[in-house]
Amino acid sequence: MRYRKSKNYKEKMLGFYDSLFVDSEKIKPGNWNNLFKNNNPIMIEVGCGKGGFLIELAKRNQNINYIGIEKVEPLVLEALDEIKREGLQNILFTSFDANHIDSQFEKNEISRVYLNFSDPWPKKRHSKRRLTSINFLKKYREILDSEKEIIFKSDNSGLFEFTLTELSAAKALITSVDINLHSKEKDEKDEKYILTEYEKRFLAQGMPIYRVTAHL
Amino acid sequence: MRYRKSKNYKEKMLGFYDSLFVDSEKIKPGNWNNLFKNNNPIMIEVGCGKGGFLIELAKRNQNINYIGIEKVEPLVLEALDEIKREGLQNILFTSFDANHIDSQFEKNEISRVYLNFSDPWPKKRHSKRRLTSINFLKKYREILDSEKEIIFKSDNSGLFEFTLTELSAAKALITSVDINLHSKEKDEKDEKYILTEYEKRFLAQGMPIYRVTAHL
Repeated sequence: MRYRKSKNYKEKMLGFYDSLFVDSEKIKPGNWNNLFKNNNPIMIEVGCGKGGFLIELAKRNQNINYIGIEKVEPLVLEALDEIKREGLQNILFTSFDANHIDSQFEKNEISRVYLNFSDPWPKKRHSKRRLTSINFLKKYREILDSEKEIIFKSDNSGLFEFTLTELSAAKALITSVDINLHSKEKDEKDEKYILTEYEKRFLAQGMPIYRVTAHL
Repeated sequence: MRYRKSKNYKEKMLGFYDSLFVDSEKIKPGNWNNLFKNNNPIMIEVGCGKGGFLIELAKRNQNINYIGIEKVEPLVLEALDEIKREGLQNILFTSFDANHIDSQFEKNEISRVYLNFSDPWPKKRHSKRRLTSINFLKKYREILDSEKEIIFKSDNSGLFEFTLTELSAAKALITSVDINLHSKEKDEKDEKYILTEYEKRFLAQGMPIYRVTAHL
């Protein structure tokens, strides 16, 4: 995704947005509930982009805490603006490489992992970089609580096929599959119909959206 | 599927086609290899219709035995004509309700189960009739050998979604998934591209064909 790099964006994040953006160097595993100042469950989105999906969830579910993780730091800045405007208390953003996810959270600290429109890394030799490859799944499993929920959405049929076989190889229980999510009768209250930025674009192009939920 | 009922079709089957069609009342579990007069592996198709897919497999793989199972007896008659014409020795047909499959074969007698374009039974209350519902999967598992291979193809996205979650619930290992089989680069030698009668029709209508392989 292209983005304009704001001048001094990091200072801006760490100053003005101090309470909304957690500098990855200051993360203490096991301390996330203290940052939220409550014991509500914590759900994360890995590769949250500009955070639109997670912000909508945070608005709907005030009793759940959300953390958006995005490797590309400047992307998060737009998200922070909106959170500040909305006065949301139950959402934070941070930026680190998903490879390190199991050292940023303690065991059982997380209740659900969302993966939306992750990079498909179409070349076979890059398959280990896909966020649903078995090595990533094992890392999510480490930090997830007993429900071990993972929810995946994509427009990419190759990544979707790969995700199903990797979930199975990891002995996850696949609990629901949608081949063409938006062709179905919609219950607008169901969070599965919240559109991400990518999703709006793909949907406008008439492309099917794939979704899987699983217990890891 | 509509079919014309030939006069005396059963007599025709049990007479002219004696060695190609096995009367379900005369089936002896554990005796199938004796009927083929060899110890080659046996693969079955449950709901084989007119048998086009299985006949093509039988032509290609002379060292594998195939059994087509179709509840609607008259459908099989056309298949028998072609087998007789081709002189194939490695294929048989029979007719019984798939619910009884585990009493028609012995444990480990079968090397693979094919399910092609099974009835989707779209109503939820009929879900147990779908040939990939967990109760059927357990029956296939009973008669399959150590490889426990099952290969499923369908044009129906609802049945495909259901099949993935049922396979997972049965703790099967999903080994490959195709969301739109015929959109991919084709290797004509690969049996996955053999078209069934239904498939030809759906493909002509531009509909995606879904495929899953799994170890049950």
